[in-house]
Amino acid sequence: MEYAVIMAGGSGTRFWPASRRDHPKQFLPLTGERTLLQQTAERVRPWIDAERTWVVTNERLAQATAEQLPEIPPAQILAEPCARNTAPCIGLAAIHLLNADPDAIMVVTPADHAITPASEFRRNARAAAAYLFEKPDAFVLFGIPPTYPATGFGYIERGDDPIARFDIKRDEAPDGEHPVPLFPVRSFREKPDRATAEDYLRRGTFFWNSGIFVWRADAILDALKTFEPEIAEHLQAIAEHIGTPRYDEVLAERFPAMKSISIDYAVLERAANVAVIPATFQWDDLGSWEAVARLRGRDERGNTVVGTHLGIDTTDCIVHGDADHLIATAGVEGLVIVHTPDATLVARRDDEGLIRRIVAALEENEPLRRFL
Amino acid sequence: MEYAVIMAGGSGTRFWPASRRDHPKQFLPLTGERTLLQQTAERVRPWIDAERTWVVTNERLAQATAEQLPEIPPAQILAEPCARNTAPCIGLAAIHLLNADPDAIMVVTPADHAITPASEFRRNARAAAAYLFEKPDAFVLFGIPPTYPATGFGYIERGDDPIARFDIKRDEAPDGEHPVPLFPVRSFREKPDRATAEDYLRRGTFFWNSGIFVWRADAILDALKTFEPEIAEHLQAIAEHIGTPRYDEVLAERFPAMKSISIDYAVLERAANVAVIPATFQWDDLGSWEAVARLRGRDERGNTVVGTHLGIDTTDCIVHGDADHLIATAGVEGLVIVHTPDATLVARRDDEGLIRRIVAALEENEPLRRFL
Repeated sequence: MEYAVIMAGGSGTRFWPASRRDHPKQFLPLTGERTLLQQTAERVRPWIDAERTWVVTNERLAQATAEQLPEIPPAQILAEPCARNTAPCIGLAAIHLLNADPDAIMVVTPADHAITPASEFRRNARAAAAYLFEKPDAFVLFGIPPTYPATGFGYIERGDDPIARFDIKRDEAPDGEHPVPLFPVRSFREKPDRATAEDYLRRGTFFWNSGIFVWRADAILDALKTFEPEIAEHLQAIAEHIGTPRYDEVLAERFPAMKSISIDYAVLERAANVAVIPATFQWDDLGSWEAVARLRGRDERGNTVVGTHLGIDTTDCIVHGDADHLIATAGVEGLVIVHTPDATLVARRDDEGLIRRIVAALEENEPLRRFL
Repeated sequence: MEYAVIMAGGSGTRFWPASRRDHPKQFLPLTGERTLLQQTAERVRPWIDAERTWVVTNERLAQATAEQLPEIPPAQILAEPCARNTAPCIGLAAIHLLNADPDAIMVVTPADHAITPASEFRRNARAAAAYLFEKPDAFVLFGIPPTYPATGFGYIERGDDPIARFDIKRDEAPDGEHPVPLFPVRSFREKPDRATAEDYLRRGTFFWNSGIFVWRADAILDALKTFEPEIAEHLQAIAEHIGTPRYDEVLAERFPAMKSISIDYAVLERAANVAVIPATFQWDDLGSWEAVARLRGRDERGNTVVGTHLGIDTTDCIVHGDADHLIATAGVEGLVIVHTPDATLVARRDDEGLIRRIVAALEENEPLRRFL
């Protein structure tokens, strides 16, 4: 059976002041009425319902995560004792799934990406799951066809010819052929420089690594055993205590002992049987306020507004507040303006590094650290 | 005896969103810890204490005004039933003072100006009061020596030679001579165009009309009888009911019936015995956010900050919030940024008309009118 595994331990501050250490991006309704976390959980339904959805977050965010997802059984919201990157995170989910279902297939997605339409995401993921019935030890990745020469993402290069192709019906147009091809992965590439990124874009066989994966729980644990035996050993110790009174204690001891490493480095770049599906859904990793403008669009003055705004001679601004608070702007352009109850941001929008510098300054300033 | 009369009915929105219809400029601590209203009341002390301080405000603001000035006897906070400009306002105060003291001298000041140092203001006003002992029917104005060719103020032209000179000791330097000269007023001038204002500035005998006056209560009422007999008649009817159960009723009937006219037009521009004291105190009418920068000064980046601010690459901004709310700015210059609990302003600071346009837009927009 297929299970959703939502990685929801992120604590980024790129959407400061809307996102905070204790209120990260996945808790924000950046693209609609529902939070990114809620949208992520709902995206796989009705294919995968709440009873088969698992979330990995951290201890600090566990309660708020559970409150956002009341339909998910509380035991399926796992809390990491500390951050150890994606390999231990996915390993932890895998041992729990395997405990519940020896044939578990994991659809692993970050909690804070924007993906539309959901039906197309499910269609792609179902093709991956179908492939795993043929090749149970394969690892399937989603590659995002690049739309510009991005230097901020890792890339996946596909092989020339598909290794499989599945016809998965479209919800909205069930007639006809709807093939989803899978390609072998030829190589993984680090974040490129500008010229290399332009080359990748031209070639058409390079994709952004979305961090969305589909594989069997037993397969990923086997691969960890091969490539990262120490991690596998810790996971095995934790797995043996699932459902026992000593579980929390063993988790608290074993999880922090694991190496902090991404699943890409730990497994995918070393494994032979890795396939990529060129995604047919729209994807955005929501890396900055700019993404809100991309996804919500701009009005005729070039402004993107969430909340209550009055603009006089205001162009090309991102304005983000809430319905009860008026943000009035006049004679300004190219700003990102964010209101929250205890902090306001006013920054030039064309330099995303500015927000990083604000966050760094807050970290270094004791009296202001409470605003992080 | 001298009495302070504070005109506190203003409801300007030039400091929107800090100032609102029900929370006007005089309620703001724009220049220090105390509100402008409180500073105005305290400025004349100990010369004129709270027992001899009267305030004219309006019904909507009366309670908040009394709360700001708990030391002033409540009966001395007069509430206009409607706005009728300064002649009826000052007339109302005059009949109350005359009822209390037939020799009352009124020191009339707006509640929302910045004046420093207070000791110098008192020294100037005491010279005016001294003059009234010699010339009981005179009207004394304070003229502000212009510091730039302002086109937003009316001007007072003085005669060439002083008509009187009083030696009033300085608190901080009691030795020596400290003359305060009075000049006859030669003419009143409307707000000039730029070239005329430059001429006034060069000539040295033209002053900004501060709207601060000293005269006897009986003299101003006599002058109103002469120049505006209808106003005087209404005031007389109100005066006859001071201290009676019918006072409120008569005020509600008579006050709105008065012509709306300034004391300048009603009396000063028509009376013969008008004198001007070139003010030796610093004065600012606080006409816009720009005034806050003038009075509070700028830091080494050109910023003027009230509240909690973190600035990255931020220059020449006015930032106004409160201690508990962080305003973070990055990559911006020349803005005025104002945070209040229910509204935020971000505007280019070099165009004061922008705030007027915001306020006008709020007036025309039913759902947003609550932010006025």
